[in-house]
Amino acid sequence: MKRWADLETPCVLIDVDRMERNIARTAGWAQARGVRLRPHAKTHKVIEVGRRQLQAGARGLSVAKGSEAEVFAAAGCDDLFIAFPVVGADKARRLRALAERVRLAVGVDSLEGARSLAAPFAEAGRALDVLLKVDCGLHRVGVDPEEAPALALRLAETPGLRLRGLFTHAGQSYHQSTPEDVARVGVHEGSILAAAAEAVRALGIAVEEISVGSTPTARHALAVPGVTECRPGNYVYHDASQVSLGTCPDDDCALTVLATVASVPAAGRAVLDAGSKTLSSDPLRPRPDGHGLVLGTRSRLQRLSEEHGVIDVADGDTFRVGQKVRVLPNHACVVSNLHDHVWAIRGDEVVDRWAVAARGHVL
Amino acid sequence: MKRWADLETPCVLIDVDRMERNIARTAGWAQARGVRLRPHAKTHKVIEVGRRQLQAGARGLSVAKGSEAEVFAAAGCDDLFIAFPVVGADKARRLRALAERVRLAVGVDSLEGARSLAAPFAEAGRALDVLLKVDCGLHRVGVDPEEAPALALRLAETPGLRLRGLFTHAGQSYHQSTPEDVARVGVHEGSILAAAAEAVRALGIAVEEISVGSTPTARHALAVPGVTECRPGNYVYHDASQVSLGTCPDDDCALTVLATVASVPAAGRAVLDAGSKTLSSDPLRPRPDGHGLVLGTRSRLQRLSEEHGVIDVADGDTFRVGQKVRVLPNHACVVSNLHDHVWAIRGDEVVDRWAVAARGHVL
Repeated sequence: MKRWADLETPCVLIDVDRMERNIARTAGWAQARGVRLRPHAKTHKVIEVGRRQLQAGARGLSVAKGSEAEVFAAAGCDDLFIAFPVVGADKARRLRALAERVRLAVGVDSLEGARSLAAPFAEAGRALDVLLKVDCGLHRVGVDPEEAPALALRLAETPGLRLRGLFTHAGQSYHQSTPEDVARVGVHEGSILAAAAEAVRALGIAVEEISVGSTPTARHALAVPGVTECRPGNYVYHDASQVSLGTCPDDDCALTVLATVASVPAAGRAVLDAGSKTLSSDPLRPRPDGHGLVLGTRSRLQRLSEEHGVIDVADGDTFRVGQKVRVLPNHACVVSNLHDHVWAIRGDEVVDRWAVAARGHVL
Repeated sequence: MKRWADLETPCVLIDVDRMERNIARTAGWAQARGVRLRPHAKTHKVIEVGRRQLQAGARGLSVAKGSEAEVFAAAGCDDLFIAFPVVGADKARRLRALAERVRLAVGVDSLEGARSLAAPFAEAGRALDVLLKVDCGLHRVGVDPEEAPALALRLAETPGLRLRGLFTHAGQSYHQSTPEDVARVGVHEGSILAAAAEAVRALGIAVEEISVGSTPTARHALAVPGVTECRPGNYVYHDASQVSLGTCPDDDCALTVLATVASVPAAGRAVLDAGSKTLSSDPLRPRPDGHGLVLGTRSRLQRLSEEHGVIDVADGDTFRVGQKVRVLPNHACVVSNLHDHVWAIRGDEVVDRWAVAARGHVL
């Protein structure tokens, strides 16, 4: 038996029991409401994790980039949605090839962007499925809900495109102060999108998919009548931000970083061999507070440089040089993207090593 | 001729002319003072860049991790310093193998940590070269200067170790308000370490190397009498933080990210296909201000999510969907670590594609 406590540090540990529980719980919510789950694979970028999500009933996977989609398609996932307004002729050519192999859809939020994808499909007498992104309050990408019908009409008329539906993402959930506020954002997310879909249908345009999703809002948004699909990502691992938001308890967090105390140079300060190149610099949400919790202590990483993590030692905690500790990071999705592989563990034991196959696939 | 403007986005561009100028300039400062340059390869993690630094006269390379050292050793770099207080039996075994192939030294800042490395060397009748880390005010790792002589004595007595010298890093330079303050930090950095070395020598212990270095302080610290070696890293590429600190002008910055405008969803907002998985979340230093400058505009990335970069469009700037732009990131070292390769460019032309060979090598 190989024990994770014996692994060289720093490295990423995935608690498979917790992960499987997270997958089953969210799958259950979707199933109970008759909504299709399409987990966002950007969180893990791991084939073995995506397979477990599909085995638990997910319809397909969401990804953020065409190059991520290519990795999961090559591994046998046959239904992929690129939840980003992809643009440009280079991307269009890759999408065209991918659409030969899998059921594919991509996000769009402008006619110019959508047209930049249509040409290779129209030339082949085919159509690329698109979902129109609607802004439900994050104010990142997406059209205002009242602009959705007019753009949907133009998309539906564009040769080489087929409008499959609408999608949104309530990322503003990460900035809410209380779980009640998060729930309200989730209901808003589903309601805004369902209403926009009705307005599009009123123009005689079919809307097959009404797709919502963020981990904090998922269970609230998918319960809104009319919603057909939900795309949470982070739920598979969770992280310190989800705990801070009240999305889950500590013991749902499946991803931790194993690190070693490299230095205890002064009273009140201990330094790990894990910095921003291991944990990322992403802040805790909704309120910034350091760079990760040291499990089993009351201490937190308060400063990171690239390879150093500086712990502000809480009263009563002690750290010694050479000691191994586990860190619960602020944001699991960006941690995955820093590592070539993660260690799958159950209890004290290492059960597998998974490649982060889509790591760094930003194209 | 392949033009970088035709590359698929997002991707990292390295302006080779600027990079070579940066390498030559810093090499010149070191040579003029008779100080050995040991550039920190963590910034680029690229074999081809490290070779250029060595060809320009660098004595060897600095790295942050043993696994980084292994990559550069395999590529033929025969003099490496791991500028981090490495600890533990796993690491010691790897160092022992590496020390057979290259002239190697590692940082230490505690007797416990140093002893954890000594055993495999002592058993083989060999000694690992160590440099004692002294804290010159960053308060990260390293002993206080007045504690250096006592620890140096213990290290010098430890079988399996050979004390090569002292080193420090004035990372607090990144928090200074003016170039004059940065210069003062640099003089302090060199002076503190030179004085600590004298105190160690007063105990009859040889101190062969007195090694300083950060990019903002390099030219000031290496000019302090007694200093023998300097280890800047970021200077090879520079970034928006160096410009903000006054270390260099805009046109010394060699690393940029080519991105595409994916969405212009509202007046005053444009969104790139590059987020924190491309640019990192590292803040601008010394004062946080967004996540990168859009070259040729007065606009800045004000918000990042994993794959979206939200530009707050400045008055007079315009962005259109499909437009390619270049972003000058806040922190080049963490950008390198997110990408599997970078494109080497001269003028409009792509001249090479370099693997980021030590990317993700955190062990």
